[in-house]
Amino acid sequence: MRFRRAYSSMSGAIPPAKAKYVPSSGTYPKGFQASGVFVGVKPGNTSKPDLALVTSDRPCAAAAVFTKNKFQAAPVSFSRKLLQSKANAGLRSVIVNSGNANAVTGIGGLEDAANMAQTTDQRVGAEDSTIVMSTGVIGQRLPIQKIVDHIPVACHQAGDSHKHWLSCAKAICTTDTFPKLMSRTFELPSSPGIEYRIAGMTKGAGMLAPNMATLLTILATDAPVAPAIMTPLLRHASRDYDAFRTVLTDFSADLAKYIVRDGEGATKFVTIRVVDAATEDGARQVARSIALSPLVKTALYGKDANWGRILCAAGYALITPPTHAPAEAEDISPEKTNVSFIPTDGSAELKLLVNGEPEQVDEARASEILEMEDLEILVRLGTGDKSTTHWTCDFSHDYVTINGDYRT
Amino acid sequence: MRFRRAYSSMSGAIPPAKAKYVPSSGTYPKGFQASGVFVGVKPGNTSKPDLALVTSDRPCAAAAVFTKNKFQAAPVSFSRKLLQSKANAGLRSVIVNSGNANAVTGIGGLEDAANMAQTTDQRVGAEDSTIVMSTGVIGQRLPIQKIVDHIPVACHQAGDSHKHWLSCAKAICTTDTFPKLMSRTFELPSSPGIEYRIAGMTKGAGMLAPNMATLLTILATDAPVAPAIMTPLLRHASRDYDAFRTVLTDFSADLAKYIVRDGEGATKFVTIRVVDAATEDGARQVARSIALSPLVKTALYGKDANWGRILCAAGYALITPPTHAPAEAEDISPEKTNVSFIPTDGSAELKLLVNGEPEQVDEARASEILEMEDLEILVRLGTGDKSTTHWTCDFSHDYVTINGDYRT
Repeated sequence: MRFRRAYSSMSGAIPPAKAKYVPSSGTYPKGFQASGVFVGVKPGNTSKPDLALVTSDRPCAAAAVFTKNKFQAAPVSFSRKLLQSKANAGLRSVIVNSGNANAVTGIGGLEDAANMAQTTDQRVGAEDSTIVMSTGVIGQRLPIQKIVDHIPVACHQAGDSHKHWLSCAKAICTTDTFPKLMSRTFELPSSPGIEYRIAGMTKGAGMLAPNMATLLTILATDAPVAPAIMTPLLRHASRDYDAFRTVLTDFSADLAKYIVRDGEGATKFVTIRVVDAATEDGARQVARSIALSPLVKTALYGKDANWGRILCAAGYALITPPTHAPAEAEDISPEKTNVSFIPTDGSAELKLLVNGEPEQVDEARASEILEMEDLEILVRLGTGDKSTTHWTCDFSHDYVTINGDYRT
Repeated sequence: MRFRRAYSSMSGAIPPAKAKYVPSSGTYPKGFQASGVFVGVKPGNTSKPDLALVTSDRPCAAAAVFTKNKFQAAPVSFSRKLLQSKANAGLRSVIVNSGNANAVTGIGGLEDAANMAQTTDQRVGAEDSTIVMSTGVIGQRLPIQKIVDHIPVACHQAGDSHKHWLSCAKAICTTDTFPKLMSRTFELPSSPGIEYRIAGMTKGAGMLAPNMATLLTILATDAPVAPAIMTPLLRHASRDYDAFRTVLTDFSADLAKYIVRDGEGATKFVTIRVVDAATEDGARQVARSIALSPLVKTALYGKDANWGRILCAAGYALITPPTHAPAEAEDISPEKTNVSFIPTDGSAELKLLVNGEPEQVDEARASEILEMEDLEILVRLGTGDKSTTHWTCDFSHDYVTINGDYRT
C-alpha cells in the first residue's frame, strides 16, 4: 500500500479560502455530547483526530439513510440492521472512525463493527444503542484493538461546547480540507417561544458524484420527533411535518453545499438550475448530465464560457436507450432552449444561447463572471414549468493529483 | 474567443509512442479517391490540412449513423435528409472540414452545409451526391467562402495512393495526436478468390464518452453492397450478411480502438470485460459505469490497483431509480463478484477480489501490470452467462489541461 498523499487536513492547516466556512461558535442541541480523539487508524496519521463520538444523555429517536450501492460496508449493514430492530427508537450514540472504511472486509469486518458498537454501549450503559460509521481505505481490516481501546477515551473527553463539536467534526474527515460543522436554532409552530437547536457535521469531499459512497453526515436536534416519522423526514422531507421538515431540509442543503465547496481540487462552486422543463425527472436528468460532464467541469476550471459543452451534455441527458419506451413528454426542444450565466454578485445575466441560437458573447464579461468562485448556470428548457437545482464543482489538475495518488 | 491551444497535430509531429499506429502503406478500395488540403478554417491554423474529400468514380450505396444528441449540427441534418431522400443509393462524395463544427449556427449554418455539398456535386458532376461533415468549434459560422474556394483544389488533388488517403485522414483531425487510418482486404463466400478492400479513417479523441458527438468516421469498400442493407449493416452488424458483417464489425472495432488510444491526455488503453452476468444490459451498465468513473480513471493514471473504486462504480451501475420498476434479474450479488487484472503480456491473472472477499494483493506485481500501456480489468459477476467488452482510457493531468484550455 502506498500513502503518498496524507490527509489534506492532517496538518490541521485549513486553506485560507476555506477558513470562512469553519464556525468559531455554535448553538448545539441540549443533551448531546461530542468528542474527537486521536487513534492513528491509518499508519501515516500521527496526530489528526480520527475517532468521533456523538452521544445523547437519554435514549433518542434516530434514523439513517444509507448508500444504495450494491456493495455495502460492514458498518452500513450493522447500523441498518440495528435501526430496524430498534424501530428507530432507544438509540444513544454514533461512533465513527476515519482512516479505514471497514468495507469489503467480510465476516471479520462485521465483527469489528459490532465490537465498536458494543464497546460504546458498555461505556454509555445502554445495550444495542450505538450506530457505527467508518470512512477511509477499502479492503483492509480495521486496527480494531487500537480503536476499541480509545473508545473509553472518546467517551471520557466528550462535552457539549463548540470546541467539542468541532473536534468531532474534524475527526470524521479524510481528504476534506476543512471540517464541516453547522448549528442553528428554530421554533416549532406548536410551541412558539421555545427554542430548539439542530447541529450537523459532514465529510466526504472525495467524490464527484458521491451518492453517499464515502459521505458521512450526523445530524442531532433537541426538538421532540417521534421515532416513526424520522425516516420519512430524512428520506423525502417533502410531504408533511412542515415546520421541522423545512428546518431540516434547509439545514441539510446548507451542510451539503460544504461538501461541494470542498470537492477534491475544486476551485468553483457551481449551481446548475434547469427551469421550465416539461417534467421534473427530465429537468433532473439534464442538470445531472451537465453537472457530471468532465468537459463542462474542465471548461469551468479553465474559466471558459463554453456553452457548447453545456448544450452537448444537456442534449445527451434524455436519450432513450433502444430497449426502452420513448419518453412521454419531450423535455428538450433545441429551438426553445436558453442558456445563461447568472453572476452571484447580483449583476446582469449573461445570455449564451437564446431560443437555440448562440448570442454574440462579450468574452470580457464572460471572463469577469468566470473569475468568481461562485457561478450559476441557468438552463431554460421552455417546454413546461418544472425545475430543479444541482450543485457541483469544477474539475482541476488537483483532482487528478489527489485521486491518482491517494488510495481511498 | 481564445485559442490558447493549437491543434495537437498542427505541428505535424506525432508522439513517438503513437507512431506505431500510423500505417506506412495500405490496400485501398478500388474506384475511390481521397485528398486532404489546407484551407485555414481555424484562424490559428496556418498549415495543417483541414479539408478532406473521399469521392467515388461512380454512384455508390451509402449509409450513415448519426449522434442521438438532441442538439444536432447543420451537416448532420443536411446529410441525414440527403441519405433519406436518396434511399441510400447514388452517392458519390464525402466532404469534410475540421476546425469548425458548423453546430448551433441556425439557418445560415444549414445553407453553408448545402453550399459545401453543392460545390462538391458540381465539381464531381452529380447532383445531390455529397455527404457533409464538419468538426471543431461550436457556435461560429464557417468561413464558407474560403472552404468553397478550396473544394475544387481538394477534387483536383484527390488520388488513390496511400499518401492521398493519409492526407485525407490528417485533414479530418482536430485535437487528435495521430491520424487514424486503416485498410484491409477480404473475400466473400460467394466469390472465393476475389479480393475486396475496405478502408476507413476516424477522428475525435476529444471526448471521454463520445457517443459520436465529435467523432467522425468514414468507411469505404469496393465490395458490392445493396443500398437497402447498408444501414442495418452499420447499425447492428448482428443478424445477417455474415461474412461482410464480420469484416465490417472487426474493422470498425479496430478503428474505434484508435480513438480510445488517442483519448485526450490518455496514457493507458484499458479493456473492461464484464462476464457471467445475468443480463446483457446489466453487463453493459456495469462496464459503462466502471469505464466512465473519474475515480477509476484517475487511479489507473496513478497506477494504483484500486479495486475498491472498480467495485464502487460497479455497485452504482444497477441502482434502480425510485420511479422505475425494479430490475427483473439481479446482475450483481456482492458475494459472487470477482475482479481481476489481466496483463496483456500473457502472464498470470492478478486476482483482486474473489467471491466478494478481497485478496491479499501482491502490490509489486500490481505495479508491474499497471506499468504496461495496455490493461484488462475482468469483472466476473457470477450471476449468469452474458458478457460485454468496453474500451476506455485513463484520466490524466493532460486531460484537464487540454479541456480547460481549448475551446472545442
